[in-house]
Amino acid sequence: MPVDSSPLFDTLAICGVGLLGGSLARACRARGIVRRTVGIGRDPARLVAACRAGVIDEAVQSPEELRGVDLLVVCTPVDRIVDDVARWLPHLPDGATITDVGSTKASICAGIDDLPQIARRFIGSHPLAGSDLQGWEHSSPDLFVDRLCVLTPTAATDPARLAKLAQFWTAVGMRTLELSPADHDRHLARTSHLPHAVAAALALALRAGDEPFVASGFRDTTRIAGGDAGLWTPIFLQNAAAVLEAIDEFRQQLDDLQEAIEDGDTEFLNQLLEQARSRRVGLAKDRRTVQ
Amino acid sequence: MPVDSSPLFDTLAICGVGLLGGSLARACRARGIVRRTVGIGRDPARLVAACRAGVIDEAVQSPEELRGVDLLVVCTPVDRIVDDVARWLPHLPDGATITDVGSTKASICAGIDDLPQIARRFIGSHPLAGSDLQGWEHSSPDLFVDRLCVLTPTAATDPARLAKLAQFWTAVGMRTLELSPADHDRHLARTSHLPHAVAAALALALRAGDEPFVASGFRDTTRIAGGDAGLWTPIFLQNAAAVLEAIDEFRQQLDDLQEAIEDGDTEFLNQLLEQARSRRVGLAKDRRTVQ
Repeated sequence: MPVDSSPLFDTLAICGVGLLGGSLARACRARGIVRRTVGIGRDPARLVAACRAGVIDEAVQSPEELRGVDLLVVCTPVDRIVDDVARWLPHLPDGATITDVGSTKASICAGIDDLPQIARRFIGSHPLAGSDLQGWEHSSPDLFVDRLCVLTPTAATDPARLAKLAQFWTAVGMRTLELSPADHDRHLARTSHLPHAVAAALALALRAGDEPFVASGFRDTTRIAGGDAGLWTPIFLQNAAAVLEAIDEFRQQLDDLQEAIEDGDTEFLNQLLEQARSRRVGLAKDRRTVQ
Repeated sequence: MPVDSSPLFDTLAICGVGLLGGSLARACRARGIVRRTVGIGRDPARLVAACRAGVIDEAVQSPEELRGVDLLVVCTPVDRIVDDVARWLPHLPDGATITDVGSTKASICAGIDDLPQIARRFIGSHPLAGSDLQGWEHSSPDLFVDRLCVLTPTAATDPARLAKLAQFWTAVGMRTLELSPADHDRHLARTSHLPHAVAAALALALRAGDEPFVASGFRDTTRIAGGDAGLWTPIFLQNAAAVLEAIDEFRQQLDDLQEAIEDGDTEFLNQLLEQARSRRVGLAKDRRTVQ
């Protein structure tokens, strides 16, 4: 945060006031990062309720109502982000920066690069924070604390805007890292999209009558499968190539485990499980208490 | 617990004072379920430390030292349970009951059925409680509260012993359910053993450089892969047939998801993810706060 504690941006507009957008608005307000937050959304009743709940300061539904926005963060599902950027950006002052919070980056950044008048002002962001819960009702001003935010500048990116955007994510409590959109998508395919596919397949493999025998192991392993299908379908489709590659790599590991079990090969099975244990335990500890 | 609050058993012996055995000893002490707890183990230093920490009252290493045990609970890895039962049971009074806490039941119960003098006095138990942590240092007297304990009586089981054993698990806070060993193993293959294999394969699919992009989704989905390989290897091997069947069912679900992604079939993918979401959310809520 700036040493003089004046707001980093005057007006923040958030397009899509759900769990992430609502949490971002609250984080900025709680930390004095912006002076004013404007919520943009399709459902007037939900926006007004978010205003009344103190999540945002103002609700806006048509581009003409937008005034003096310095930073627009698009928090809609990944298949709507490019359209939302294109729709709202012409109504922002020239100096305004636009970013998003989408879990895929290559498809979105390519879509934006096709809009030359926009590309200079847009920088992709992916704050690695979230929940399987939906809606601003579950938002938290501390959702981003101690999490990583990946920024994906392209050849078109203005360095000054990039530096200020990194400062913004740092101010809500995040570490930041720059990656190419393609590298982002390959890492996230393995660390986020693959686990979601696997958790969904596990939940689907449950048979009638199994429920009483579900304990904390199954609950943890499938928790993310409780996420919104409408958000995840376009994530898988936008990152299809990297996700399919990650599924292949996962299948090879499962093949090994299966073979060891079929062959009754105690030594090989123990070795695989020990490798997996060591990888899991070796992950740096979460820097904050799990929610 | 008995209305007169006198102990249900006088002396409880626990063979294998780790996370489960230690938690059981502490649960019984905290609730006055037994008068005395004796710990049996292979490592004298660990047993003495458990005594000093107040987890057990007494440490025993050779069968001759055992005195007046009413209930023996064998808490060793599943591939040692039959041997431990056979070793310690001859040194127990005729009236003593023996049970275990193993995650597989068919192989153990079949092993015990081959020992006719023992079968009448043994009843398999599987308390669905645990942790990826190991050792009595992580034990908790409330580990079993609001969890399910499956009891697997066989043709040889004495009904009076079964009733008293169910009373014992209820006294530490559990619900109980009777199942055949084979039915137990089929359900647990899907709800516990399959998730462990999948979590291990996910952890193994991680590549160098992915770690910074690991967030709570990956952590939750792979948490159980941090469990002790030495405990899990014999679980998979003892329940191999049911586990392999569960892996096959899981693969079919993953095939569907993969096909939908390959084909860019938004509708089918959304339908699968929505089914998974609804299954996951539909699971009765955990009756207690997740640890």
